[in-house]
Amino acid sequence: MNKKRKRSVSSVPIPSFTDIQHAYQKISPHIHHTPVLSSQKVNDRAGGAIFFKCENFQKAGAFKYRGATHAVTELCSSGTPQGVATHSSGNHAQAVALAASVRNIPAHIVMPGNAPRVKVNAVREYGADITFCEATQDAREKTLEEVIQQTGALFIHPYDNPHIITGQGTAALELLQEQPDLDMMLVPIGGGGLISGCAIATSALSPGTKMIGVEPKVANDACLSFNTGTLHPVQSTDTVADGLRTSLSELTFSCIQQHVNEILTVNEQEIINAMRFIWERMKIIIEPSSAVPVAAAFNRIDTEQKKVGIIISGGNMDLDHLPWNDNTNGTG
Amino acid sequence: MNKKRKRSVSSVPIPSFTDIQHAYQKISPHIHHTPVLSSQKVNDRAGGAIFFKCENFQKAGAFKYRGATHAVTELCSSGTPQGVATHSSGNHAQAVALAASVRNIPAHIVMPGNAPRVKVNAVREYGADITFCEATQDAREKTLEEVIQQTGALFIHPYDNPHIITGQGTAALELLQEQPDLDMMLVPIGGGGLISGCAIATSALSPGTKMIGVEPKVANDACLSFNTGTLHPVQSTDTVADGLRTSLSELTFSCIQQHVNEILTVNEQEIINAMRFIWERMKIIIEPSSAVPVAAAFNRIDTEQKKVGIIISGGNMDLDHLPWNDNTNGTG
Repeated sequence: MNKKRKRSVSSVPIPSFTDIQHAYQKISPHIHHTPVLSSQKVNDRAGGAIFFKCENFQKAGAFKYRGATHAVTELCSSGTPQGVATHSSGNHAQAVALAASVRNIPAHIVMPGNAPRVKVNAVREYGADITFCEATQDAREKTLEEVIQQTGALFIHPYDNPHIITGQGTAALELLQEQPDLDMMLVPIGGGGLISGCAIATSALSPGTKMIGVEPKVANDACLSFNTGTLHPVQSTDTVADGLRTSLSELTFSCIQQHVNEILTVNEQEIINAMRFIWERMKIIIEPSSAVPVAAAFNRIDTEQKKVGIIISGGNMDLDHLPWNDNTNGTG
Repeated sequence: MNKKRKRSVSSVPIPSFTDIQHAYQKISPHIHHTPVLSSQKVNDRAGGAIFFKCENFQKAGAFKYRGATHAVTELCSSGTPQGVATHSSGNHAQAVALAASVRNIPAHIVMPGNAPRVKVNAVREYGADITFCEATQDAREKTLEEVIQQTGALFIHPYDNPHIITGQGTAALELLQEQPDLDMMLVPIGGGGLISGCAIATSALSPGTKMIGVEPKVANDACLSFNTGTLHPVQSTDTVADGLRTSLSELTFSCIQQHVNEILTVNEQEIINAMRFIWERMKIIIEPSSAVPVAAAFNRIDTEQKKVGIIISGGNMDLDHLPWNDNTNGTG
């Protein structure tokens, strides 16, 4: 199967599969080798064989720990940095906080004042220093700049960073080691770091595997960018899949153009239904962003008789605000 | 370590470890060999090494499928029965429905009219015939008797049945195969079928392992019976641990007297906190009854430097009514 081969728009070169192999050597002793699970009930519903790479069981609860560990390791390769910093209200914040704490490096995390208490607590538990700011992109970036000036910390971008991308790609590498002959692999798209790394690894290890990105219909910037060949920023962030509200960067867009076959979208109700199905039938906790590719397998793709890999990106949830409760009784 | 050796009050002989081994040979091809999981965050909190035998991943979502499969298999050993029947609003109903369906035997389940929709749907999905009745013990038993008279089905009691007890005991057998030198094993107690089988297996396989039963403080009939030597029926069923609202039978009480070392109780808030901790940190769904022994490990026992096994009994939850939501915003 031929992947699309468009010219890169990024000034940073696209990482290679060799880069992912090197990343894996470095982070392998520090990450969880997460299980690949399957479920008869899921297979009955999908009509095919679905293999879930369960990054919800990863340290800090999401695949983000792979990239963060790699980025911190690389920063340490030329001496211990004074600190690392990022802005995030989500899984990247927790991952950077934990990866830094393991190496006794100070972590400075800028978080919006309205970030969920559960995520603030998790970052704090990992010993990071938190600076709160207003909940706008501008305020986040400005505050981060101030923190960096004050502390001398080095910025770790959540996805526009080759070391992050190659770290995330090790999730697909492990999945293909365990299930090498997948017909397709489904991966959620937010900023595109996960799918970029996974697509590079899959192109090299299993070129016959169709690489499909999935995103919420209401935040379909990647789909639009992919189909038009022009990078579109995300217009709406009104999706339950809180990890997928970000725009692609030039680097991740280039990776996607070169190594991804198709991008699909799913609607909000499909995401919520898929998430609940997995909770009820598989008894594992996945966050809404992880349910996005599951929803595609259930509603958008012919998986009959197919062998399908899905990256379950994470399991960090505010258990006080489950989407079905928020929908049905308005207490969210 | 010496187990208590009191005289049995039951007219039915206590099953032996050989009976459990025979049960295991029969059911092994039909059940899931559930994983034994551990978590650094749990171990940090407990100060010891906790090993969870995850029967929430068992078929039909609970350990009950072990006993039900064994009981149905035994009933079939002298010809295919016309049907099987039970009354239950919980995991035993689902387990019997599925075990019968696998053998194409009709299952007749009597359920109270107020049983949660999610459990009624699960029983129906397994193809069982449901008869609704009033939500009293009398109505259940009377309706079951009528169903049995009409259909000729054979009754499978949820715990007062040696084949059920030996089936449930295979959970401890598998746990000890994987983790043979446990200092203690914690098991929830409702009707006592699970702990009876587990205690018999553990006495034989690992006599140095202390067998501890745990139940909700507000439904402490087993603790009271154990400490006084006289069978006390449960007085209150007002516990979040919906699987543990039943009384011991003479048979399970005898097993417990002979093979269990200690029975502890935990309060409702401890159960809810332990359940939430496991959901948030381990990303697996356990039902309140499963959180009862976890709560004991966190609050009632010195687990420092100890190797502790816990049977996670099941993961069947009504996701519309989580105990922390019911508590905090009154929407339950």
